[in-house]
Amino acid sequence: MVLSYTKGEIPDYQMSAMAMAICFVGLDDEETLELTLAMRDSGDSLDLSQIEGITADKHSTGGVGDKTTLTLAPVIACLGVPMAKMSGRGLGFTGGTIDKLECFPGFTAALDEETFIKNVNSLKLAVVSQTANLVPADKKLYALRDVTATVDQMSLIAGSIMSKKLASGSDIIVLDVKTGSGAFMKTLSEAQKLAETMVRIGIMARKKTAAVVTDMDQPLGNAVGNTLEVVEAIDALSGNGPKDFMEVVYALGSKILTLAGVSSNESEALHMMQKCIASGAAKQKFADFIAAQDGDASYVWDTEKFPKTSYALSVCAPREGYIKSVDAHGVGAACMRLGGGRETKDSPIDLSVGVYLKKKRGDYAKKGEPLAVVYANSETKGKSAVRQVQKAYQITDEKTKPVPMIKRIVDGVPK
Amino acid sequence: MVLSYTKGEIPDYQMSAMAMAICFVGLDDEETLELTLAMRDSGDSLDLSQIEGITADKHSTGGVGDKTTLTLAPVIACLGVPMAKMSGRGLGFTGGTIDKLECFPGFTAALDEETFIKNVNSLKLAVVSQTANLVPADKKLYALRDVTATVDQMSLIAGSIMSKKLASGSDIIVLDVKTGSGAFMKTLSEAQKLAETMVRIGIMARKKTAAVVTDMDQPLGNAVGNTLEVVEAIDALSGNGPKDFMEVVYALGSKILTLAGVSSNESEALHMMQKCIASGAAKQKFADFIAAQDGDASYVWDTEKFPKTSYALSVCAPREGYIKSVDAHGVGAACMRLGGGRETKDSPIDLSVGVYLKKKRGDYAKKGEPLAVVYANSETKGKSAVRQVQKAYQITDEKTKPVPMIKRIVDGVPK
Repeated sequence: MVLSYTKGEIPDYQMSAMAMAICFVGLDDEETLELTLAMRDSGDSLDLSQIEGITADKHSTGGVGDKTTLTLAPVIACLGVPMAKMSGRGLGFTGGTIDKLECFPGFTAALDEETFIKNVNSLKLAVVSQTANLVPADKKLYALRDVTATVDQMSLIAGSIMSKKLASGSDIIVLDVKTGSGAFMKTLSEAQKLAETMVRIGIMARKKTAAVVTDMDQPLGNAVGNTLEVVEAIDALSGNGPKDFMEVVYALGSKILTLAGVSSNESEALHMMQKCIASGAAKQKFADFIAAQDGDASYVWDTEKFPKTSYALSVCAPREGYIKSVDAHGVGAACMRLGGGRETKDSPIDLSVGVYLKKKRGDYAKKGEPLAVVYANSETKGKSAVRQVQKAYQITDEKTKPVPMIKRIVDGVPK
Repeated sequence: MVLSYTKGEIPDYQMSAMAMAICFVGLDDEETLELTLAMRDSGDSLDLSQIEGITADKHSTGGVGDKTTLTLAPVIACLGVPMAKMSGRGLGFTGGTIDKLECFPGFTAALDEETFIKNVNSLKLAVVSQTANLVPADKKLYALRDVTATVDQMSLIAGSIMSKKLASGSDIIVLDVKTGSGAFMKTLSEAQKLAETMVRIGIMARKKTAAVVTDMDQPLGNAVGNTLEVVEAIDALSGNGPKDFMEVVYALGSKILTLAGVSSNESEALHMMQKCIASGAAKQKFADFIAAQDGDASYVWDTEKFPKTSYALSVCAPREGYIKSVDAHGVGAACMRLGGGRETKDSPIDLSVGVYLKKKRGDYAKKGEPLAVVYANSETKGKSAVRQVQKAYQITDEKTKPVPMIKRIVDGVPK
């Protein structure tokens, strides 16, 4: 059915009725796998057989301030696990990984297959943009689901993500499933179900697969916006990453390293990653990777070189108290309004704008103290974003309890 | 939504997803009514306001050997209730009412509105073919449902039938909901649910509405096939109708006459109808009606004039015993194979072919005794139909219990 639909032999109106039926009846594990594999096989697949060692891929379901790949990939590559990453551009609050990497002047992700394989073999790290013909069935089906109220179905979501991951060819797939106001999965139980469904698909498709369900009620780290996030990712590689962000990086990294057999347990993996950052090796790897893809690596060593915005506007606390929450969706929407995100796939994107959070959940703020800084290139948009960010903050008199970043871990190895 | 869909503003793929969602969630009474009224209003409606008296319409959900309208309509007209009937051609085992009426040379149902109204006022009976623009929303939606596995949903079926009945403009709507192997509704509980849904729609739309759920496990009467059924309907108007057929005619007629206020109760109504047939008035009314629509009424008085088939082949009992059942679907399919039904809306139809049942449920047959006669114009098709009809008969040693023809009555008057 997926094949006939991709070829145009099954009309949209039958596929949409089928999608709606799936929304009500659901698919069992076997059906979900079959759907995923059929979508995987609907177009080109990446052949990673010429890469030495066990390759790893990491995927996030998307959130606000999520620059995890930028920090995680060089750390993992440094420890000898090849990261052959196929990535997309972002549609949403900020750009995707490739947009963020394009903050480095000259950087390109349009590598031919030969260069891509060569770079992965020499550096253990390369990022290439998705080919036009990667999983065309998913592109067509997703567009249809988008206009027929059939997006929100676990097997269809899992199949959409996993078909692309399987077509990307890595041996290890580690998934970061976000949950909370800034995520697609608003509740923990939905996020956990999606994580379990995707891990089951991965294992049935004979891939080492794991998923980590992580918090996305407030933005991840302090920086939201393309350049701001790149700088934060570089800071993290220098050993100065925000605590919540590093928790997510380490949780995903531990999974990759143990599934790859590089470390025998997660505390060993954590120690290896911390050492790799402390020694400066991870930052050097990142610079080498940027240079290998024609980017100006001098920016890695001097982040002051990145272009600045015309305006930096403070968001001040309207009252004193403890920060109860920072609505990730609100901050993301503010970044979007500043021009930092893409509304349609051809929208231009302003890489320099964004929001830097000075206070996060649990912090204390005096009245008038800056909660965040809005970086804007238009005063009007900047002021509007300031109001939006201010609204995202909830302040109470009571101390707030800490919320764990890592909510669930789901993993498995093919039998 | 229905209006936008009819205009082409809502695409098929959204409507099919909606139909599938309705299949799972269902529609409540109010939603079903709204859907029905929106479909009714999607095209032309018949304006019957110039007809004197309370007009009545009768609709059957379709079965094998169902020639009820041909007998019922002249009886009701004779008793003073105007029958202004809009009818379709058949898609199925035999033709529809208009195909059957076209057995009379010259007969036409393509009346303009003025002639139609005039005939109803003078004769109390006229049959007109559905205009092209009657409930176009239903035509379009039904075609879509047919190819998206969304036909089988109670509210959609009820809305489809009732939108056409409401657009036809009669004050009284009496529905014959068939149940059994030859019917769309295979089980009594489904048929009853459909009957109740349609009656509720009718009452909410301020029409006097009733439904009778009748048996369609075996064909109705003895004749299956266009000309054969016309002859049987004329026999019934001469007082020689098969018992099961007359039961259905009288049940539906009683409903119409009591809802119209012509009779105060159903036994009175029955008596009136029987008297009307016995006096010859009903048969005369039928002849007048055929003549008024340019048909050769001499065939009413001499049914031998109807063309005969080249072959009349007996279906013999393979063993002796009691007839346990005569599968209506099997007999209907045999008639279809003979060329008596239409597979697509432009198929030609052979009006003379069909099957005449000599034995029905509960009858006793000796081995070799004729169970039925197949009337065919091709020996090959005839022999194949003989085998098919033979298979439709189930014969047992035990006497079979009689099955009631009238299974449920559902009725109501708008409050």
